[in-house]
Amino acid sequence: MTLIQNMLDSARAAANVLATSSSEARNGALAALAEALVARQTEILAENAADVAEAQKAGRPRAVVDRLALSPKRVEEMAKALREVAALPDPLGEIYDLTTRPNGLVVGRMRISLGVIAMIFESRPNVIPEAGSLCLKTGNAVVLRGGSEAARTNGVLGAILAETLPAAGLPAAAIQVVGDPDRRHVMKLLEARGKIDLLIPRGGESLIRFVDEHARVPVILHYKGVCHVYIDREANLEKGLDILENAKVQRPGVCNAAECLLAHADVAKKFLPRATEVLQASGVELRGCPRSRAIVPAMKEATDADWGAEYLDLILAVKVVDSLDEALAHIARYGSSHTEAIVTENYTNARKFLAAVQSSCVCVNASTRFNDGGQLGLGAEIGISTTRLHAYGPMGLKELTASKFVVLGSGQVRS
Amino acid sequence: MTLIQNMLDSARAAANVLATSSSEARNGALAALAEALVARQTEILAENAADVAEAQKAGRPRAVVDRLALSPKRVEEMAKALREVAALPDPLGEIYDLTTRPNGLVVGRMRISLGVIAMIFESRPNVIPEAGSLCLKTGNAVVLRGGSEAARTNGVLGAILAETLPAAGLPAAAIQVVGDPDRRHVMKLLEARGKIDLLIPRGGESLIRFVDEHARVPVILHYKGVCHVYIDREANLEKGLDILENAKVQRPGVCNAAECLLAHADVAKKFLPRATEVLQASGVELRGCPRSRAIVPAMKEATDADWGAEYLDLILAVKVVDSLDEALAHIARYGSSHTEAIVTENYTNARKFLAAVQSSCVCVNASTRFNDGGQLGLGAEIGISTTRLHAYGPMGLKELTASKFVVLGSGQVRS
Repeated sequence: MTLIQNMLDSARAAANVLATSSSEARNGALAALAEALVARQTEILAENAADVAEAQKAGRPRAVVDRLALSPKRVEEMAKALREVAALPDPLGEIYDLTTRPNGLVVGRMRISLGVIAMIFESRPNVIPEAGSLCLKTGNAVVLRGGSEAARTNGVLGAILAETLPAAGLPAAAIQVVGDPDRRHVMKLLEARGKIDLLIPRGGESLIRFVDEHARVPVILHYKGVCHVYIDREANLEKGLDILENAKVQRPGVCNAAECLLAHADVAKKFLPRATEVLQASGVELRGCPRSRAIVPAMKEATDADWGAEYLDLILAVKVVDSLDEALAHIARYGSSHTEAIVTENYTNARKFLAAVQSSCVCVNASTRFNDGGQLGLGAEIGISTTRLHAYGPMGLKELTASKFVVLGSGQVRS
Repeated sequence: MTLIQNMLDSARAAANVLATSSSEARNGALAALAEALVARQTEILAENAADVAEAQKAGRPRAVVDRLALSPKRVEEMAKALREVAALPDPLGEIYDLTTRPNGLVVGRMRISLGVIAMIFESRPNVIPEAGSLCLKTGNAVVLRGGSEAARTNGVLGAILAETLPAAGLPAAAIQVVGDPDRRHVMKLLEARGKIDLLIPRGGESLIRFVDEHARVPVILHYKGVCHVYIDREANLEKGLDILENAKVQRPGVCNAAECLLAHADVAKKFLPRATEVLQASGVELRGCPRSRAIVPAMKEATDADWGAEYLDLILAVKVVDSLDEALAHIARYGSSHTEAIVTENYTNARKFLAAVQSSCVCVNASTRFNDGGQLGLGAEIGISTTRLHAYGPMGLKELTASKFVVLGSGQVRS
């Protein structure tokens, strides 16, 4: 059981090399990794086919198999993502917040790497190149532990990375994949206090809960998204329909999709029938509160379990509220700190919603689907944090760094 | 043993009120607290005198008694610090990093509070108004647990705060002091996962270690300071003497004081005798490596225990190194990620030191004593973090906040 300890020690040594490596070296390695993935895709696809066959034989749900399965197109997408990360500006060494103090000291902050990052994730093998590249770009060593259903795919991806990095002049241990599917290795990672600077779990609710319960290392949770769209009394209902449809239907299986509609009573009579029509055309099942069902009897009855539910599916909870305050109270009680949107033309209500809602992303007249690193301009993201410490919302390159103070003096002493 | 649970539940409710309270309300409360401390100083000093008498009777070290003892002047200083925090700009609600996306979305970040903060600290009762005011200013509720030797002083300070806050229109539970000295309450705090958003321990090494070992809640460590001053081959030796003297002598008992001098071999012969003269005049005991002692035989012999030692006293370890690289390697091995300084006129060496040293504050031609929130322009500080996540170096008001994304649209949906 010293496997994890050895991996973390190698990761620390690699992190120390990466911390002062040049942009050129890190970007060159990313380009080499992209090339290697494409060059060795036959190997990758063969191992992946074996994983997929086993998952099918074991009767795993279709969604799991879909997330697991790779294709030449998906491998090319992985390679493309690596090249895109290489093309992003280097965050390391960036100096910002420079000021000159009264005594002439020039004080600023300089971005540095965090050190050793660990990721525990499920299914999708593309997490390996994705997280690997973001960590490499930011000078962090990373240890990745994927689900057992992708063991062969993860193994070959890990082997390709480990073989390519030294050829590009960087330590093989910069990106390591835990190959052994023994679950005890997960506990070893969670307990490696002092050896892991940040652990990011990515996956379903039970994985996140498990990590949250047992982790002794610093963790940033990427938890569930129970996102609300509130249609204000002074909403432009056309915008409301577009935003609601987009938030619910465009990609219902992701965390920034809407799960609950809150409609102000004064517009509910007009809005709910039209919303029902639009959403039902896309196959959405609506589950309404009694007042919603009084307007649209075709809605199913919502139960207590529907408030705060993360469907990740074509289902929407619907509730009529009497005021913005009631909407805010509902969000505070049932929201998951992920993303909420208000649709309104009223300036004061927009400001109030922006200030009062404490979720990681608050939208005015825009779809909840915009809570995404790429959409918000971060360039890339390793996930969306729903905990406030260090990072809240999409985590891009900057969120994978720390900053130290730099003090440029000319002989100053403190008096 | 539900005391802590009840306090944390009240703290959460208070945090929810504080999160959307006005600057005016929070600053008004700070002014009222300052006034109350001065108005009730007789009471404070009486309780403090009892604590001091007991500590003396128990034979506590003089340094402990000194840190514990209050005077009318110290109470006035507490009140002054509260007024200064009130005068700082409000970080809450600040919107920054605003950009316009190609689709017209205006995206930015808005500062919000963290939620519930806990502090575990030793001796100094002034931590209560200090940390209390910084948390209140940043919209966070705080639960403070001080050392048992200051139980009476902490109790009366807590009572004054709790009575004053509601009169100023804010919840009494915004600042709470754990009065019961039972040590089990500390464990309850450390285990209150989900109820505490950030725990900050402040005190000696054993307290920090205990917290680090047992905490199940997010922690930012304010660990020891083993600060190095490196005199480069191309140092201006006059600047070097001033900086070294200031870093060692000005206030030897604090974490940003220098504990180790590294001198390049090419200047050691010239520098060490003069440094010895200057430091011995202030009563500093020097403990040198063999090469240092060959130059200044009066130095005591350094043992292995001296490298990496935090003396917090008038003692300095001295080592001759052959290169900047050797100095960097020594710092990487024995430093505590706190503060290091290089004295040099060489541009390339200065840049190399700045980039390579990963401590929370890196100084060129300036004293290590500048690693301090006030000196670096943060206005106030709650401590100096030696861990990289969320905050590294002095933690000011901004470091007690999180940021959410705000998205201002005009009906945009994601395609």
